Amino acid sequence: MKQLSVHSRRRAEFIKLDAEVGKAIEESGVQEGMCHVYVPHTTAGVTINEGADPAVVEDILARLEYLVPHGARYVHAEGNADSHIKASLIGASALVPIAGGRPALGSWQSIFFCEFDGPRHRQVLVKVMEG
Amino acid sequence: MKQLSVHSRRRAEFIKLDAEVGKAIEESGVQEGMCHVYVPHTTAGVTINEGADPAVVEDILARLEYLVPHGARYVHAEGNADSHIKASLIGASALVPIAGGRPALGSWQSIFFCEFDGPRHRQVLVKVMEG
Amino acid sequence: MKQLSVHSRRRAEFIKLDAEVGKAIEESGVQEGMCHVYVPHTTAGVTINEGADPAVVEDILARLEYLVPHGARYVHAEGNADSHIKASLIGASALVPIAGGRPALGSWQSIFFCEFDGPRHRQVLVKVMEG
Repeated sequence: MKQLSVHSRRRAEFIKLDAEVGKAIEESGVQEGMCHVYVPHTTAGVTINEGADPAVVEDILARLEYLVPHGARYVHAEGNADSHIKASLIGASALVPIAGGRPALGSWQSIFFCEFDGPRHRQVLVKVMEG
Repeated sequence: MKQLSVHSRRRAEFIKLDAEVGKAIEESGVQEGMCHVYVPHTTAGVTINEGADPAVVEDILARLEYLVPHGARYVHAEGNADSHIKASLIGASALVPIAGGRPALGSWQSIFFCEFDGPRHRQVLVKVMEG
Repeated sequence: MKQLSVHSRRRAEFIKLDAEVGKAIEESGVQEGMCHVYVPHTTAGVTINEGADPAVVEDILARLEYLVPHGARYVHAEGNADSHIKASLIGASALVPIAGGRPALGSWQSIFFCEFDGPRHRQVLVKVMEG
């Protein structure tokens, strides 16, 4: 298992992990299998979506904020209840098939670390399974 | 890894994949393991939910449309920003345990390809892992 | 594959599975791999989020209810359409990496069974894969 370091600069931000995930698969030498990208945090997540037009990520973040506003009333008193809720809606991990030693992503797909309570230093675990 | 072709007929539509996934597992000969159903697209997803009453899928699609309307204002200029957002809420893949050479689905569970920007020709990747 | 029994006491409730999942991994003897926690139901799910402050779960449940109210109008006639929708938003399973014979959860992470149509007797499938 490989551990990546991610540094977010805003409260809510998606950070592309394609290069790091591709490198972890390459280093593993695995040709066919699955790659699991996992965040060990409770106010962040992982999603797969379009990486070409940054407006897509902007729209996802804006809609999540509209559905789960930072400033709404919550019971959790740390000011980041919305971040926890967004994390559960997006999910803590993504699983990507590996084919020919590379992630079998579609033409438009990127793997994103999803920050919902930054800016922060974060970790991402990347596990490659053969099979 | 097996590649399925899926043809959607509406803009938003769930299409049952149970038969194709069951067949992929059978063809692999794997008795115990996991089956990963993955869409390499950014305006589609995969979910597991009730397959018996079509009203359930209808309600899921209607609520997603209510929460993320096609006609709302978005930055992404291709007219399918809502499709991208819905894809990230639902997720790009589902992982199903295999027991006795079959998907260990519950009595009411079906695996659905989720179209959010159809009608289109789509692909679904099905990977079977032994273990 | 191990099967857990879960008993929910309210209509909507998150139940911590950390101890049971940790035990399943320990019993399997697997040191490095992945653990898949799966619900074979269509009105329940699995999520990973903060387990320390119960207010976090309370906020997640309240926001899901706000976004997908039990009392809204739905086509599905069994009175639990909202439960099905919530299940698809949260997802039917979680995948956790295993390191050193233990789930590689972050300091604040817990694995939760998510009940959306209780109280009920439920099952959770826990599969440990080596690799």
